[in-house]
Amino acid sequence: MPKPSNREKILTEGLRVVHERGFAGASVRDIVKAAGVPQGSFTNHFVSKEAFGLEVLQLYYERGQEKARQTLLNEALPPLRRIEAWIDRSREKLTEEGLRSGCLFGNFTAEASEHSETIRNRLVEIFDEITRLIADCLRAAVRDGDLPPSVDGEEVAGFILSSLQGAILMGKAQRSTVPLDRFKHILFETILR
Amino acid sequence: MPKPSNREKILTEGLRVVHERGFAGASVRDIVKAAGVPQGSFTNHFVSKEAFGLEVLQLYYERGQEKARQTLLNEALPPLRRIEAWIDRSREKLTEEGLRSGCLFGNFTAEASEHSETIRNRLVEIFDEITRLIADCLRAAVRDGDLPPSVDGEEVAGFILSSLQGAILMGKAQRSTVPLDRFKHILFETILR
Repeated sequence: MPKPSNREKILTEGLRVVHERGFAGASVRDIVKAAGVPQGSFTNHFVSKEAFGLEVLQLYYERGQEKARQTLLNEALPPLRRIEAWIDRSREKLTEEGLRSGCLFGNFTAEASEHSETIRNRLVEIFDEITRLIADCLRAAVRDGDLPPSVDGEEVAGFILSSLQGAILMGKAQRSTVPLDRFKHILFETILR
Repeated sequence: MPKPSNREKILTEGLRVVHERGFAGASVRDIVKAAGVPQGSFTNHFVSKEAFGLEVLQLYYERGQEKARQTLLNEALPPLRRIEAWIDRSREKLTEEGLRSGCLFGNFTAEASEHSETIRNRLVEIFDEITRLIADCLRAAVRDGDLPPSVDGEEVAGFILSSLQGAILMGKAQRSTVPLDRFKHILFETILR
């Protein structure tokens, strides 16, 4: 395997630092220090902190796509189980990091969406993309007769994504999986029943 | 009415600036500039930015208590209508500010809960307090026969608060009330039906 470039180190370590400390809370100094590269390296590779932020979002998004392939897009599972597996994978991931950091997309929305229209628009695109994947599962569940035809895939998918974001946020405050477990329980016992 | 003190100006304008730009994104310089007071005034009144953050949270909390008195605690309304009125008031408030800022509690959770245990603990207390008010409404609705006795007030209240936080967060990304309207619709059509 080739040695990671300074650019790659800044992105990988930068993602970790931004996820832990927030986008405004992580200075360029913090980021280059974590990456173990000279300070000038940052400006060599990124025209602005906003440009860096967009690439960090992209890296996190690509990792999420791998998760989506194994869950929401996994046709070996029945459609509603794909959604369940996706929530379970999110739970695992959050637990691994001690429930301290939450979801980078949610954090960026809370913090950075007011500072940069480019970042906000990218977040909206990402949320739309995830909503579409969930809606596809719901529509497949309707086709399979696992949900009544009255279920509006787009509407319920948007609700699932936003409620999951809220549960992750509350879980971050409480350092607990209770909000996520409660969300999953109520989702499958009432809305997707 | 007495003239507001520098301390009051820092808190009132500081709340506005922190709500718009985030806690890390709003520097002490930004805050004193918005308050129109000398820079030294900040350190005269607050031992740290964390101490200031806690007081800003408190001010926002007190404004929220007024909203709670008119809605969640308003015994002139049937219990489920109290919850509905509370969500509607949140929607109004968010719309007034152009759906740009979201909820200060959610923003602080996303951003500042990792930096300060004191702030995180205060956020948990506040969320617990709001959950308790919602749970009281749900239990009253069960007593009145508006909800089945199987409804677990605490569990559903936690779910309502976390899903509302998520809907506000998504609404901030999209600058739209759609996530909040969808949340309310699904809440009252399925979970609280």
